[in-house]
Amino acid sequence: MSLRTYAILGTGALGGFYGARLQKAGLNVHFLLRSDYEHVSKHGLVVESVDGDFTLRQVNAYCDVEKMPRCDVVVVALKTTQNHVLPKLLPPIVKDDGVVLVLQNGLGVEAEVAQIVGNDKVIGGLCFLCSNKVGSGHICHLDYGQITLGEYAADYYAAGITERMRQIGEDFESAGILIELTEDLLLGRWKKLVWNIPYNGLSVILNATTAELMANVHTCKLVEQLMYEVLTGAKNSGRIIPDSFIQTMLDYTVKMKPYRTSMKIDYDERRPLEVEAIFGNPLRMAQAVGVDLPQISCLYRQLRFLDDKQKGG
Amino acid sequence: MSLRTYAILGTGALGGFYGARLQKAGLNVHFLLRSDYEHVSKHGLVVESVDGDFTLRQVNAYCDVEKMPRCDVVVVALKTTQNHVLPKLLPPIVKDDGVVLVLQNGLGVEAEVAQIVGNDKVIGGLCFLCSNKVGSGHICHLDYGQITLGEYAADYYAAGITERMRQIGEDFESAGILIELTEDLLLGRWKKLVWNIPYNGLSVILNATTAELMANVHTCKLVEQLMYEVLTGAKNSGRIIPDSFIQTMLDYTVKMKPYRTSMKIDYDERRPLEVEAIFGNPLRMAQAVGVDLPQISCLYRQLRFLDDKQKGG
Repeated sequence: MSLRTYAILGTGALGGFYGARLQKAGLNVHFLLRSDYEHVSKHGLVVESVDGDFTLRQVNAYCDVEKMPRCDVVVVALKTTQNHVLPKLLPPIVKDDGVVLVLQNGLGVEAEVAQIVGNDKVIGGLCFLCSNKVGSGHICHLDYGQITLGEYAADYYAAGITERMRQIGEDFESAGILIELTEDLLLGRWKKLVWNIPYNGLSVILNATTAELMANVHTCKLVEQLMYEVLTGAKNSGRIIPDSFIQTMLDYTVKMKPYRTSMKIDYDERRPLEVEAIFGNPLRMAQAVGVDLPQISCLYRQLRFLDDKQKGG
Repeated sequence: MSLRTYAILGTGALGGFYGARLQKAGLNVHFLLRSDYEHVSKHGLVVESVDGDFTLRQVNAYCDVEKMPRCDVVVVALKTTQNHVLPKLLPPIVKDDGVVLVLQNGLGVEAEVAQIVGNDKVIGGLCFLCSNKVGSGHICHLDYGQITLGEYAADYYAAGITERMRQIGEDFESAGILIELTEDLLLGRWKKLVWNIPYNGLSVILNATTAELMANVHTCKLVEQLMYEVLTGAKNSGRIIPDSFIQTMLDYTVKMKPYRTSMKIDYDERRPLEVEAIFGNPLRMAQAVGVDLPQISCLYRQLRFLDDKQKGG
C-alpha cells in the first residue's frame, strides 16, 4: 500500500472521479471543494461508473486550503479557467519533496504551475475521460479513464521517465486506472490537441456532435485541415507527429459513439470555456517562433466571441 | 422617356423594389413571379420605403417565362441559389440586341450567365440595398439602394464604360436610384466581398449582428483578417484594393445601425444560403492560381455545414 498522500483540487467530474478511485483503492486522499463542501462532508461521494458504481460514505473534505495537510501529490483538477486561483491554493499544500500533478486540458498549463511551485515539482497528465458531475458529490463516469503521465522540465524539455512518475502511475493503476508514461510531455500535449482543437471548437461553434461533424464532407475536411495545422504547430516547437496520426484520429472519431465534447458541455451549461488553454496557448507558442495557424486562429476568435457573449449575458 | 423594356426575374425584396421603382418612373416593366403570382396579378405591388411609400395597382405579372415579351434589359434578381433555372429562363426573353443585368451577390455570376447568353450580353450590378419582402407583393425598403454597374467581358477583362451602361444607368437614375459606373466589374465585385465575406459569414456562424461583431475585440480582429484575405484573393486575380479600404469598411460598419446581413436573414428564414457565390467562387478563383485563403475557407466549410444541416432538417 502506497504511503503517498493525495490532495485533489477541484472535486468535480474529473477530480471527483480519480480521487474517489484512489481512496477506494486505499490511498489517503484529501478533497478540496467549494459549492459541494457541505453536502460531501455529510454524505461523501457517489460514483456511477461503467466500471461499477460505488459510494464513499466518508471522505476528507475541505472548503479551505489552509486546513488541508501538505500532500505528496497535489492533483490540479480544476478547469483551466480557474487557474488564477492556483498561486493561492498550491503553496500551502505541496510537501517540500512533493509534486503537483496537472490533469488539465490544453497547452502550457504545467509552465504556469511551475512558475508557482518550481520547475522540479510538476508532472503533467493527459486524461482521456468521459465523465460528468450530475449532482453534489455525484459523478457519472461514462467511458474511458486512461491517463498519460509526463514529467515537466523547464521549457518543456523532454524529461524522460522518472521514478516518481512510475510511483504515481502505480498508485493510479492500483485504483484501476490505465496509465501510460511518456518521455515527452509536450509531444503528448500536442497530440491530444490534434483531437481537441477541431472537435471542441467546431462542436461549440456549429452546435454539433462529433458524429454530425464527421457525417458532413465539409466539416470533415475542415477537421482534417485543422489537424494539419496542429501538426504544424507541434513541428515548430520541435515535436514531430506523423501525418498518419490524423487518419488514425479521424477513423477513431467516426467509430466513437456520437459525443458531446467537454467544451460543448461547458458551453451548454453556460460555464466559461477553456479557450485560452486549448486554443490561445498553442497559437501563442507558434506565434513566438513566427508561425501563423490561420484556421485555428479563426476558431479561437469565434470561440472568444461566444464565450465573451455568454459571460456578458 | 426611355423606350427600353425591362424584365425582372425574381420579384422579391430586390427585384420587386427596383422593378417597381422603374415602372413608377414610367418604364415598361415585366415581372416574373412564382408564389406571389396570383396575388400580384390581382393587387399589384406595395413598396414601403424610406424614400416614400407607393403602390402599383397594376403590373405586368407572369408566372411563365414563355408568356413574357423579349426585353431590352433582363434583370436577374433571383438569389444565386436559384441559378440552375437560368438556362431555361433567359434564352426566351432577351432581345437579340438586349442585355442581361445581373443584380446578384458574390463572384463569377456574370460568367455563368455569359455561358447562357454570350459574353457580349452581360452587365453586372452591385446593389447596396437593405430591403425585405414582408408579404406577397409587399416590399419594405429600409435603407440604401445604390447600384454600381460594370460591363462583363470574357474572363472579367476590364471592359470600361460603354454607352449601354450609361443608358441603363439613366433609366435607374430616372427612377431615383443612385448609379455608379465602374470600368472594372471584377474589381467592384472583389471590393464588395471585402464587406460581404466577413459580415455575412460570421453573422450566420456566430448568430450575431454587425454591431455585436464590431463590439468584440476578437471578432473585430477576425473581420479585419478576413478582409485582408479578400484583398489577397483580389490581388491574385490582378485587382489591387488598397489596405486603407479595410479601415474604411470597418469604420463604415461601426457607424451603421445594428444590421442583420442578407445571409443571416436567409438563414433565419430557413432559405438556402448563397455560400457558393459569396465564398466558394472566390476561393476557387484564388485556388486556380495556387492561392490559399485559409480563414475564408474555414468560414466556407462552416457555412456549408450549417446550410446542409438546415436543408436536411
